[in-house]
Amino acid sequence: MENIKIYMQQVGQQARAASRLMAQADTNAKNRALEAIAEALIAGSAVLLAANAKDVSAARASGLDAASLDRLTLSDKTILGMAEGLRQIAQLPDLIGEISDMKYRPSGIQVGRMRVPLGVIGIIYESRPNVTADAAGLCIKSGNAAILRGGSEAIHSNQAIAACVIDGLKATGLPETAVQVISTTDRDAVGELITLKEYVDVIVPRGGKSLIARISADAKVPVIKHLDGICHVYIDDEADLEKAIRIADNAKTHRYGVCNAMETLLVAQSVAAAVLPRLGKIYTDKGVELRGDDAARKLVPQMKPATEEDWHTEYLAPVLSVRVVAGLDEAMEHINTYSSQHTDAIVTENYSKAMRFLREVDSSSVMVNASTRFADGFEYGLGAEIGISTDKIHARGPVGLEGLTSQKYIVLGSGQIRK
Amino acid sequence: MENIKIYMQQVGQQARAASRLMAQADTNAKNRALEAIAEALIAGSAVLLAANAKDVSAARASGLDAASLDRLTLSDKTILGMAEGLRQIAQLPDLIGEISDMKYRPSGIQVGRMRVPLGVIGIIYESRPNVTADAAGLCIKSGNAAILRGGSEAIHSNQAIAACVIDGLKATGLPETAVQVISTTDRDAVGELITLKEYVDVIVPRGGKSLIARISADAKVPVIKHLDGICHVYIDDEADLEKAIRIADNAKTHRYGVCNAMETLLVAQSVAAAVLPRLGKIYTDKGVELRGDDAARKLVPQMKPATEEDWHTEYLAPVLSVRVVAGLDEAMEHINTYSSQHTDAIVTENYSKAMRFLREVDSSSVMVNASTRFADGFEYGLGAEIGISTDKIHARGPVGLEGLTSQKYIVLGSGQIRK
Repeated sequence: MENIKIYMQQVGQQARAASRLMAQADTNAKNRALEAIAEALIAGSAVLLAANAKDVSAARASGLDAASLDRLTLSDKTILGMAEGLRQIAQLPDLIGEISDMKYRPSGIQVGRMRVPLGVIGIIYESRPNVTADAAGLCIKSGNAAILRGGSEAIHSNQAIAACVIDGLKATGLPETAVQVISTTDRDAVGELITLKEYVDVIVPRGGKSLIARISADAKVPVIKHLDGICHVYIDDEADLEKAIRIADNAKTHRYGVCNAMETLLVAQSVAAAVLPRLGKIYTDKGVELRGDDAARKLVPQMKPATEEDWHTEYLAPVLSVRVVAGLDEAMEHINTYSSQHTDAIVTENYSKAMRFLREVDSSSVMVNASTRFADGFEYGLGAEIGISTDKIHARGPVGLEGLTSQKYIVLGSGQIRK
Repeated sequence: MENIKIYMQQVGQQARAASRLMAQADTNAKNRALEAIAEALIAGSAVLLAANAKDVSAARASGLDAASLDRLTLSDKTILGMAEGLRQIAQLPDLIGEISDMKYRPSGIQVGRMRVPLGVIGIIYESRPNVTADAAGLCIKSGNAAILRGGSEAIHSNQAIAACVIDGLKATGLPETAVQVISTTDRDAVGELITLKEYVDVIVPRGGKSLIARISADAKVPVIKHLDGICHVYIDDEADLEKAIRIADNAKTHRYGVCNAMETLLVAQSVAAAVLPRLGKIYTDKGVELRGDDAARKLVPQMKPATEEDWHTEYLAPVLSVRVVAGLDEAMEHINTYSSQHTDAIVTENYSKAMRFLREVDSSSVMVNASTRFADGFEYGLGAEIGISTDKIHARGPVGLEGLTSQKYIVLGSGQIRK
């Protein structure tokens, strides 16, 4: 424990020192480093695959489940994918140093803002080695230093990727401690990282709800996170029913295990008979289990009764809860009560109701006539995504490079003094 | 203690409920409430002054110092000032509901952002009753609910101001729990407030360093704050020396007890002999005690030796530390080591050095050829200021109405689904 403390302090100090240099790195240096890392990953494929094989066989021996094993396993294709991801980050515009809103004030000074890196980003994630390359790339491009702590099952893979990152940084003259991958699997390292206020500016946890809940309960450093994706689609009585059915189908069945999938469908009473039987058939044909209130069950006989618990649940599975509501007000009341403030959508052709929904639903993404599945950094045009935030402080919704930056004020004067 | 817990939970719940209504309040309702509160303060002057007199006499009896007594004391003039402040907030543009950056994406959806309130703001401050009106006004205008905890010496004054705020909210149909002034002087109430994660979105402490340090050490809710204002002016070897002397004089002597006053003056070696004796005379004539390094002391005989401690100190008093540096690099090294990241300025006519200083000095306000005293929400054109942040998360530099808001994503579709 004492050793871990000393080790993490040292990692933090090095990250802080590196962050000063990264903040001043120019766009070309950062992009060249991203390219160099991509090349190092491809050139080092054999080494990466050998390291990964160690992790995979140990994980298999310890009985890791198939889905986790799949995410842990690297292949030539996934290595190419990591390299491609880094090259895409290199293509994104560099936000650092951008100056905006410069305005003259009555005193004669000109005041505006310059975009700056946050400093040191701590990223804690599960055993998915590709996150190591992705997170390193986003932090480098945004001029930050990164401390990465991946799941212990991926330790050899992550160290091998870290070696490629260091090669790329060195080759382009950036500090090699700009990205540090924690080399111990000791869990105490996480506890230290999230309380290193002096050296770490923000923590981004990526992974399951229990990991994120634990981190955000104990962290002393600000955390960018979302816990749940309990997303709703509300089919209004003035919905275009074809759009409604298409969206409700897509929002639930396009992918089940993702945070922007719909978990609860709300339907206005007056159109319930027109849409629920059709949707019921679509869902049942796709193997989705339905749980509804009494009104919904009357229209869809195979639907099981929903309990209070269902409205609170992110299934991440082919299960959907369904509720018939009187109209917009009851739908918004339900959403503002049960939503996890991730993503909620209305389907309606009525202008005023669309505007009210946009304004009054307090979620990080609010949509009209579109599938909740669009809540994603790439779909929104951010070019990359480090995570999704359902908090309101600092970043809300999908978080791209901009979420890893801040703005300072700059003042251009010509000798002004305060009178 | 148990009672305080229950009381604060109730305050928190009421604030959360009120925040939902405030988020939807339209601009006119919010502005009318601000006007109505201003009127209620003026109409209630006699009651306010009587309540304040109780506080003042109790504080005098308990030996409160003269400066604090002065800040505690209300007069007809300060009441008019509070009312005027609220009317100025009413004049500011309403940021809530502003939609920006709506862009079509290849999928056909249109994505952008809408500005929304943070929700519930907790403000903790010392015994300055005018802050009660000011903070209430800023939170109302930004569509937030507020929980205000003023210093215990001002309890009667604050309750009287709270009554006026409630009158104004009621008169305009806004929820009267949109602004709640804590009615107990028990210190445990602060401990509860800063850990009410479920009901409070951000804490803004206003006051002395020890108050803020205590709050930010114990808070579970995000805190917008600055601890210190150790501000620097660097006079470069290519400075216009007349501007340099004017700025160095103003930054130190315009006001001493403020966070944006200069505490350390850095002077390039090659111009030290030209400016330091002149500045030394100005400061000494104004009663400023000077503490410097050896090189500075050779030029200004009345200067005392500075210790390492001096570079770390926010004097908030007529004391200035002075150091002669080789040039820009050494100046920035000093600043990035000792600055509290509040406000730092360079005086130079050299373009490249000005640009480097702007980019490389990691402070919340960075200035060229202007007095650090300009670091202020009003001088920057924010129209109001709830505080200054030296952190990088969420808000940096002077924090106005925008710092009390966030942005959610909105998506306008016409039936799009994810492919």
